[in-house]
Amino acid sequence: MAAPVWSVDPRTGKQREQVAVEATAEEVDQTVRAAYAARKALADRTVRAAFLRTAADLLDGAGEFVIEAADAETALGPGRLTGELARTTYQLRSFADIVDEGAFLDVLIDHADPDAGPAPRPDLRRYKVPLGVVAVYAAGNFPLAFSVPGGDTASALAAGCPVVVKAHPDHPGTSEVCASVLRRAAARHGLPEEVVGLVHGFDAGVGLVRHPLVAAAGFTGSIRGGRALHDAAAARPTPIPFHGELGSLNPVVVTEAAAEERGEAIGGGLAGSMTLGVGQYCVKPGLVLVPVGPAGDRVVRSLTEAVSDTAEGVLLDARIRDAFVAGIRDRAALPGVESPVTPGESGENAVSAGFLTVPAARLSDGDGHALLLEECFGPVTVVARYEDETEVSAVLARLPGNLTATLHIGEEESAAGEGPAARLLAELAPLAGRLLVNGWPTGVAVAPAQHHGGPYPATTSTSTSVGGTAIERWLRPVAFQSTPAALLPPELRDDNPLGLPRRVDGRRES
Amino acid sequence: MAAPVWSVDPRTGKQREQVAVEATAEEVDQTVRAAYAARKALADRTVRAAFLRTAADLLDGAGEFVIEAADAETALGPGRLTGELARTTYQLRSFADIVDEGAFLDVLIDHADPDAGPAPRPDLRRYKVPLGVVAVYAAGNFPLAFSVPGGDTASALAAGCPVVVKAHPDHPGTSEVCASVLRRAAARHGLPEEVVGLVHGFDAGVGLVRHPLVAAAGFTGSIRGGRALHDAAAARPTPIPFHGELGSLNPVVVTEAAAEERGEAIGGGLAGSMTLGVGQYCVKPGLVLVPVGPAGDRVVRSLTEAVSDTAEGVLLDARIRDAFVAGIRDRAALPGVESPVTPGESGENAVSAGFLTVPAARLSDGDGHALLLEECFGPVTVVARYEDETEVSAVLARLPGNLTATLHIGEEESAAGEGPAARLLAELAPLAGRLLVNGWPTGVAVAPAQHHGGPYPATTSTSTSVGGTAIERWLRPVAFQSTPAALLPPELRDDNPLGLPRRVDGRRES
Repeated sequence: MAAPVWSVDPRTGKQREQVAVEATAEEVDQTVRAAYAARKALADRTVRAAFLRTAADLLDGAGEFVIEAADAETALGPGRLTGELARTTYQLRSFADIVDEGAFLDVLIDHADPDAGPAPRPDLRRYKVPLGVVAVYAAGNFPLAFSVPGGDTASALAAGCPVVVKAHPDHPGTSEVCASVLRRAAARHGLPEEVVGLVHGFDAGVGLVRHPLVAAAGFTGSIRGGRALHDAAAARPTPIPFHGELGSLNPVVVTEAAAEERGEAIGGGLAGSMTLGVGQYCVKPGLVLVPVGPAGDRVVRSLTEAVSDTAEGVLLDARIRDAFVAGIRDRAALPGVESPVTPGESGENAVSAGFLTVPAARLSDGDGHALLLEECFGPVTVVARYEDETEVSAVLARLPGNLTATLHIGEEESAAGEGPAARLLAELAPLAGRLLVNGWPTGVAVAPAQHHGGPYPATTSTSTSVGGTAIERWLRPVAFQSTPAALLPPELRDDNPLGLPRRVDGRRES
Repeated sequence: MAAPVWSVDPRTGKQREQVAVEATAEEVDQTVRAAYAARKALADRTVRAAFLRTAADLLDGAGEFVIEAADAETALGPGRLTGELARTTYQLRSFADIVDEGAFLDVLIDHADPDAGPAPRPDLRRYKVPLGVVAVYAAGNFPLAFSVPGGDTASALAAGCPVVVKAHPDHPGTSEVCASVLRRAAARHGLPEEVVGLVHGFDAGVGLVRHPLVAAAGFTGSIRGGRALHDAAAARPTPIPFHGELGSLNPVVVTEAAAEERGEAIGGGLAGSMTLGVGQYCVKPGLVLVPVGPAGDRVVRSLTEAVSDTAEGVLLDARIRDAFVAGIRDRAALPGVESPVTPGESGENAVSAGFLTVPAARLSDGDGHALLLEECFGPVTVVARYEDETEVSAVLARLPGNLTATLHIGEEESAAGEGPAARLLAELAPLAGRLLVNGWPTGVAVAPAQHHGGPYPATTSTSTSVGGTAIERWLRPVAFQSTPAALLPPELRDDNPLGLPRRVDGRRES
């Protein structure tokens, strides 16, 4: 008996409709095998790029319907979801451009050289080839941009890898809609629809990462779930790369000068960033170091006002709501912790935003307050008030890895290459994959230079899941030695029939 | 009581002298902490490059002594070790050049753009920073090129990472000598000697991969040892990248045309490649598919002659000798297996080379002959005689991942873009990281386009341990968002004070 998969309205907690069934082990196997069999159809870069662009066009075309489906299952609201869809289709088109350009193939050619090095060197030509079927684990908090048509899927398809997506239980209907759009786009270009597979169910997700024909996995979600899948990937008879984005506290340090110059703006900006998407962003600022004293007080006062004015929001599901409520309760109960604005529950999964304060010294005084250094999903942040730079350093020294770390500094500090700002930035740098000055970490731009990853548990690898270099995760290099021209792939031929950027005998051509 | 570490003469099996003691858990901890404390000294690229060049110069200067030390412990002979030293110092200098050039920093700059993408884009600048302390597990079969001063060490230092090497028990004295040379080179440039640490002992090796301040590991060795360390790296509270090169069968396919045109040369070339270094190369051709019939017979006859003429060699240690002898015995006992030249033992660890033959059909007929598809370390190879292309395909379909795969083809096949050669190359491509045509896999050139890695168990990651891109293993990207110029690292400043190759707003500079 196949277990039904229900679409649930988070606003009411009620089942809307059955949209799918959980995949059995046999169905997971069939889906992976079908994707594997389809992989060669993705070999042509021109077709791949066109497929990604058509997928973007069709998603845009179905926008109203997609947004309605996603809102019904996530309560994220049409405004946010319209933006997320635009981001998603932009991302698909960006990867199409990357496929067209071909720099990701990383072509290196060294001609034979009898005088090179300690021994004669044979002709060597290297480029990158797709790894194979990629398992994508969709995120609950981004039903589009980090789910079926999201960055992992887009970058894997761009690399030439078929994908099998494990749908997130919070938006199975949206997942079905998006998968059907992607498959339609594939069909338009003569590609087998099986280049995009979709499975539902917890066991299906575990089965996927263990499947012998799955060559790599991308994941966005919780530390617990991500770590379990990471461990399963590493324990396989043939281990596979597991690129997981797990959890992040995203520390923010506000200097005295920043608080003096822009205290109100910082408090307001923080409120906006921590409550965006009902605080359900992986880059939500979860720990903010603010100086004691009147300038820091202004930050807190402004934060209090802005958070109090923030409308209630509906969390994605009851499990997240329960974890949020319990997380606040446990944190608020710690010695020295105060709740200037206590987050609250109302209605089914609706919650109001809030924040906690604590003397920074508590955070580095034994493990009693270690919970405050863990991510709490939802619209809450912890403001730690510090007496001096030493206290800041002591807190930073206790932090695990993060996706982002943010520094708010004053105007003079911005102009000085040495001093407290430079020292703080140097302390934040080892903690995160993206460092921000005078900004907020939410709103991860899709750009070539973006890096969305960081030391564990932010990510389980050194790679990024956003930005152009995300494609690197799904490729492996292959070198051809002394291979006759007729047998070389066109990417590696001397006459460069595909016009690829490359490096030949150490010299870059492009 | 510290356990003594003895230098052993493999030619006699006798202990030569005590050269060190095994590191206790405390000593491992101290060594890693000292390396960690020294990491910032490696931040200056100019100093790093100079250090690597001086290390090469000092190793060359101490060449006679180093080679004598290595020969006494490995019996690899002065000829081979002279070549290995040249390769090692060339590699150090190559990485110095790579450090100077700076392309490995992978600098990407996207200026702020209010009109880019679906939302205004902030200023984003990305480059790569060193991961931290790298644990290097030295290989038994390369006392220099894949040990203390070898590729993992050279690439990690080039990346700006201090290393702690776990010495191989087959050459502890050579390891001490080389470590002291590297430290002397460091001191010459004002670097703390602790940028190169060295520990001995099995437990020290396990402790190293588990140490919280070790950020990544490089390994060259057996599947069993490498897998255990890989699993330990993945099971840490904070998992770390583990780049292990574990084992490889290195299949070779000889077409009928190749056998007809060059049967004798192929047999002789194979004998040379499989007996090089007493067959103790990770890229030794371990399975050779040769057609049945008179042309293939000529290959086997020529191989028989050349192998019979090959001088005995001394294996690295008694454990390898025992595994070799048992490995031959178990393989030769399988139904249908013949031994035209039976490898033999004589003296302590001295063995003679040999090879086995088997009908190719046996290899794909159930699991009874699976042992023949596993690496057997030492001077032996398996020649599988095939009837037709179908039998070749059936064998290739059963192979695990490899470092290399080789194709020997005829002149007409070399010129044809389609046909059996192209089909075979396409079947070999998924099996290996390096594909060779009409060559032999031994002798891994140090070159930018080299790739020494392959699907598991060849390597545990998609990276290479030889060639310019090996440096990528020890780096992680960091992005700076909206960071004032004064606070940016010089690598990311608009005026490019370090003259780095980079990509700015999508356009490549230099």
